This record gives sequence, C-alpha cells and structure tokens, in this order.
Amino acid sequence: MTAPLINDSFLRACLRQPTPHTPVWLMRQAGRYLPEYRATREKAGNSFMGLATNVQYATEVTLQPLDRFPLDAAILFSDILTVPDAMGLGLSFGAGEGPRFAHPVRDEAAVGALRVPDMQRLRYVFDAVASIRRALLTRDAQGREAGRVPLIGFAGSPWTLACYMVEGGSSSDYRLVKTMLYARPDLMHRILQVNADAVSVYLNTQIESGAQAVMIFDSWGGVLADGAFQRFSLDYTRRVVAGLKREKEGRRIPVIVFTKGGGLWLEAIAGCGADVVGVDWTVDLAQARARVGQRVALQGNLDPMVLFAPPEVVAREAQAVLDRFGPPQRGDGGWEGHVFNLGHGINQHTPPEHVSALVEAVHAHSRVLRQQRASES
Amino acid sequence: MTAPLINDSFLRACLRQPTPHTPVWLMRQAGRYLPEYRATREKAGNSFMGLATNVQYATEVTLQPLDRFPLDAAILFSDILTVPDAMGLGLSFGAGEGPRFAHPVRDEAAVGALRVPDMQRLRYVFDAVASIRRALLTRDAQGREAGRVPLIGFAGSPWTLACYMVEGGSSSDYRLVKTMLYARPDLMHRILQVNADAVSVYLNTQIESGAQAVMIFDSWGGVLADGAFQRFSLDYTRRVVAGLKREKEGRRIPVIVFTKGGGLWLEAIAGCGADVVGVDWTVDLAQARARVGQRVALQGNLDPMVLFAPPEVVAREAQAVLDRFGPPQRGDGGWEGHVFNLGHGINQHTPPEHVSALVEAVHAHSRVLRQQRASES
Repeated sequence: MTAPLINDSFLRACLRQPTPHTPVWLMRQAGRYLPEYRATREKAGNSFMGLATNVQYATEVTLQPLDRFPLDAAILFSDILTVPDAMGLGLSFGAGEGPRFAHPVRDEAAVGALRVPDMQRLRYVFDAVASIRRALLTRDAQGREAGRVPLIGFAGSPWTLACYMVEGGSSSDYRLVKTMLYARPDLMHRILQVNADAVSVYLNTQIESGAQAVMIFDSWGGVLADGAFQRFSLDYTRRVVAGLKREKEGRRIPVIVFTKGGGLWLEAIAGCGADVVGVDWTVDLAQARARVGQRVALQGNLDPMVLFAPPEVVAREAQAVLDRFGPPQRGDGGWEGHVFNLGHGINQHTPPEHVSALVEAVHAHSRVLRQQRASES
Repeated sequence: MTAPLINDSFLRACLRQPTPHTPVWLMRQAGRYLPEYRATREKAGNSFMGLATNVQYATEVTLQPLDRFPLDAAILFSDILTVPDAMGLGLSFGAGEGPRFAHPVRDEAAVGALRVPDMQRLRYVFDAVASIRRALLTRDAQGREAGRVPLIGFAGSPWTLACYMVEGGSSSDYRLVKTMLYARPDLMHRILQVNADAVSVYLNTQIESGAQAVMIFDSWGGVLADGAFQRFSLDYTRRVVAGLKREKEGRRIPVIVFTKGGGLWLEAIAGCGADVVGVDWTVDLAQARARVGQRVALQGNLDPMVLFAPPEVVAREAQAVLDRFGPPQRGDGGWEGHVFNLGHGINQHTPPEHVSALVEAVHAHSRVLRQQRASES
C-alpha cells in the first residue's frame, strides 16, 4: 500500500504542484460505452449491483479504461446510492429505468428512523477499493513495485443522496424533496446531518482501504435555489469535508467537490475545504480560475457530447478547454492546478476511439502549453 | 385595441418606470393546476393542441388565472412548438408523454428543406391573441373601455426550438442536437437562422394582433457549454430581438428574454437588446441587479416548488425574493425594474390557494418596501 506511484500527475495537480502534462480522467470512465464493460456486466447477470458488489468484477471494470487509454487516475467502480442502500432503503436498478428505493424517506417516522449505517454493510465497497489498489500495482522503471496511477474513492453529497432518498429514485422536478425542504426544513436538516455523518465515515473507510483521493458528487446541488443551496447542500458538504482524514502515510489525500450546475456559487464552493472544485461545461475556466484564485485546483470541463464529433473536433475542443484554463502558473499558494475531465459522466453511446483522441490531445497539447511557457520565461 | 390599461404596472416595470407595487405573473399560469383549466381541456377532447388551436378555448383558459388571482399580466395560452409544427414537422402530444415530432430534422436533406413557415398556418395563434385582447377589455374607473392588464405574447428561442426539432421531443441529454452542433455546425447554424427568421415574424405578427409585450423562452440555453451558448443560442436570440417591432401606437413593446440556467451569462444576455431578462431561482437577485446595472429590468425568480409549502412559508419566501432585489431605485437609465415571477413554469400539482398567498404577498410586501423607501427619503 505504500508503493510509490509511477504516474502521480493527478495527485500533484490536485495539490497544485507542477506536472509534466495536464492529467485527465473521465467521470464514469468505467462504463457501458466500453464493450469489455458490457461483457463483464453480462457475466454479472447484467446487473449493476451484481457488478458493484462483486469485488472481482468491480476490480475488473475499474481497470478496463486504464488498459485502453493512458488515463491519469482510476476511480472506484461503484454508485453513490450504496450508502442509503446500507441504511435499509432497498436499492434496485430496474432495466433501463435508473435507481429505485423500495423504502423512500418521506415522513417524520422514516426520517426519525434514519441512522448512519454499519460500515460492515458496505464491506464490499472497501474490499473493492483494496482489491483495485492491489491490482494497480506494477513495476516502475527501477523495477520496484509501484502504483500505475492513483485510485479515487467517492460518495454522493448529503443533499444529492437526500434527493434520491426522498424522491425514491430519479426526478425531473425534485418536487417531493423540495416540498420537504420548504415545508419541513427540520426533517430535511435531520436527513442531511445523518447523511453527512455517514458519508464522512464512508469516505474515511475508503481512504483507510486504499483510496488516494476522494470525490464528493453533488450532482443535484444545482437544482436548488440560491440561499437554499448554501444551507441545504454546501453546508453539509463542508461538514463531510471537515470530517475527512486528509493525510495517510505522509501523503495528503486530496478532496474534490463537484456541484453540477454550481457555477454561480464557485467562490462559496471553493471555500468548503476541498482541494479541488469540479465544474461543468457551462463554466468558463478562465473566469473560474480568476474567481477561485489560489485557493483550489479546478477539474473539468468538456461537454461529454463533444465526444460524438469526429476525433479532430474532439481534439480541437479539448485544446480549447486547456487554452481557456491557460498555462500553469505559480501563485502565492502554489501552482494553479488543472485536472482535465468532462463536465459530467461520459455518455453510454460514446465511441471509445474518440476517447483515445481526447486523452491524446489533452496530454499532447498540455505539454505544448508547458513548453511555450518555458520558452517564454 | 388602443384602449388604455387599468393596470399597466407590468409594462411600466419592464420599461423601468416607477410602479405602486411589484407586478407579478407566473409562467404557465394558465394550466393544469387550475380545475377550471382541466374542465375546459376536457371540453377540448383533453388535448393540448385542441385547446391551443381553438380561439374560444385559448381565450377562456388564458383568462382563468386572472379571474382567480389579481395577476398583473396575461400571457397567451399556446406552446413554443407551434412554429416548428407550422414548418411541417408534425407536432403531437402523447398522453403524459410530452411533445413529439413525426418528422425530426436530423440530416442535411431535412435541414435544407426547412423554411420560415407561412404565417397563415399560425393564424389560430394570432386570432387567439386578438380574441384575448378583446376579452381583456373592461371598464376603467372613468367608465371608459380599458384593458384590465396587458397581454404577453411569446415564442421559443431559435436554439430551444432546434433542440426539439432535432431530438424529436424532450431529451435528458441533448445528444442528437449537440452531436449536430459539434459535428455539423453548418447544419446547426442553418436551422438556427431559419428559426430566428421564423420567430421574428411570428412575434411581430403577435404584436400586430395585439400582444403588448413579448417573451422569448430559451428554456434549453442552459444546457450548452460556455462558448457554444453565445454562438448557438444568444447570437440567434439577438437576431430575433433585432428584428422585432418595438413600438405600436405610441407604446413601447417590451421584450423579455429568459434563459433557464443562464445565470453565468447574465451580462451577455443583458446585452442582447431585450428590455427584461428573466432569471431562474439559482440566481441571487441582488447580485444579478449589480451585474446588469441599469441596462435591463429583471424578471423572476421564486422556485416554483416553494408553492408546495404552507401559505405562510410561501409569503415569507416571496418576501425574501423582493428583499433580495431591494427597493426600487432610480438610476441613470431609469428605475431598476423588477417583475416578480417564478424561475420556471408553475407545477401542475400546485395548490391554487397557495398562488393566492403568493400574489397577495408580492403586492403587499412590495408596497411596504416602497413606503419604507419613501419615508427614508
């Protein structure tokens, strides 16, 4: 577990240290757009949870995109809804339907019964983390055992989990969860506090099991009104971050917070204690960099739909994202770090060869930007 | 048609003139949350287009919310998809399914065949506008024939129409329309140009028929990436606005542009030529006011889901929106106008009595703010 990393560019960028290229990974990089993923899923009875709860399969699919593309980080294959499932809400994934909870949390009794789950019920996640970390071991140039790339663990934000827990699944208007928020804020705060405590211990156990960075997905923070976002989403994300183990074996564990649709609140999010703030494609990275200054690194932000254009367009759009961020510069608080990513999960219909074009373009063009900068100074 | 208005507070606020209270109307105020709407729809064979294409029914449902609540404006009952329907795309609304086009525009041939439709095919819309204007006539305090409140006409933005035209209906990821945008921007620009020309003439004919203000709904502008929004949505909205008749019978016709999810681009949108910019609930109205300054009035921005809370919470949240905007002040370019609205259409499950509480709170609290301001100066 203490083996060095052959490629630590992702962790360095998160911590705003210089890197030879801009590291890149893709949200949902282990997924249905890959034929090898579909084959493993077939073996698991074509069930998402069948994959996620089987350590061998979870390890296999986590590594698949790394074998295909020179990505700079691995991310645990799992789902944010493992935590409410462990609370006893009864998660299932209907065919092509998205997640469903058998026991949504909609009244005072259900809210009162919520508890931080026993982490033993999430053992399969921590076992997968440990297994993936082991599987990432290889030999470095000196023949030492080393990690190929770092492993990212993750969880949903307290608010995003609450959306699913109250709605009982996906929603287009968030009517039930927002009704509770506006009509019974006391109940909503209680759910969020339990979720924050649960997510903290869940992420800490992932870190203990081998995750080298963690990401909090606030996928639905952007559906909240200004004011409500700060009180019902960001405040609880901040509590999660405050509860995290930030160092392990002498290395800092970077924390990434991603609020989809959160561009208007970037300054506030940058103050939540995270090392990295993820932004979606609606954000101008140059403006974002100016707004957050030296406080955090940024992650993002290509529109995943760019990957449906021909490879030369994919490359050009990736270059445009890198150009908007601009060449890395040293500031008072360290370098201004950029982790390249999509602004949301990769679409299941994406042609894998376009992902190759993307990763290649990010690595090549970010090296060019660094050379240009070096020759200027 | 030249009758004065008994209540012109909406038009005055749009044009940044002083008003005795903050005017309020609600997107989709004539709709399924009203039992009287459902009754009329029943008469029309329970069909949305049956309502929209029948002048008598369209007039009836447009007036229903005004008879129930002291709203400060009426809005034409219709749909943004009337325009692509008139282009021959074959609009239908399946039961509980949302809109569908029988002939989506997905290839070069379909794009090449697109034309600005003959406005005769939209005669039913213009007839409804004229009929509603007549129906709004009543007697003012002096016994003169007068309009109760002004009538707003509307259309979809070129980009928002293109989303439906390419996707063939609603979409969760906009994959087809974005693939065209990134892979064949030439085709996308051609669709947008036809749409811009069509929307301009459509809105101008609504104005000629009696609409006293017009609103452009860019409902899906917010799904675009930064950069793409400016080129593929805002540029074409600007062309529409530039083509509009802005004065009729000595009165200015205000133009409202609403981009849902467009808060990050507020300054750019405020420069598109509109008199009023609509904002959704993610925007802080105090910041928005500071960002757009004296250039435009603002419309918004209560989260429609607030209406599911008890009436006292509805009132408190409405007051909070008014307080964020702050008391009206005179600036260099006129007063800073605010039109109260929701940040999106009213939900079909909304209790109508909560709408009463909302309208009452907006009128009462905005008068209090004006009195406070008057006593301070």
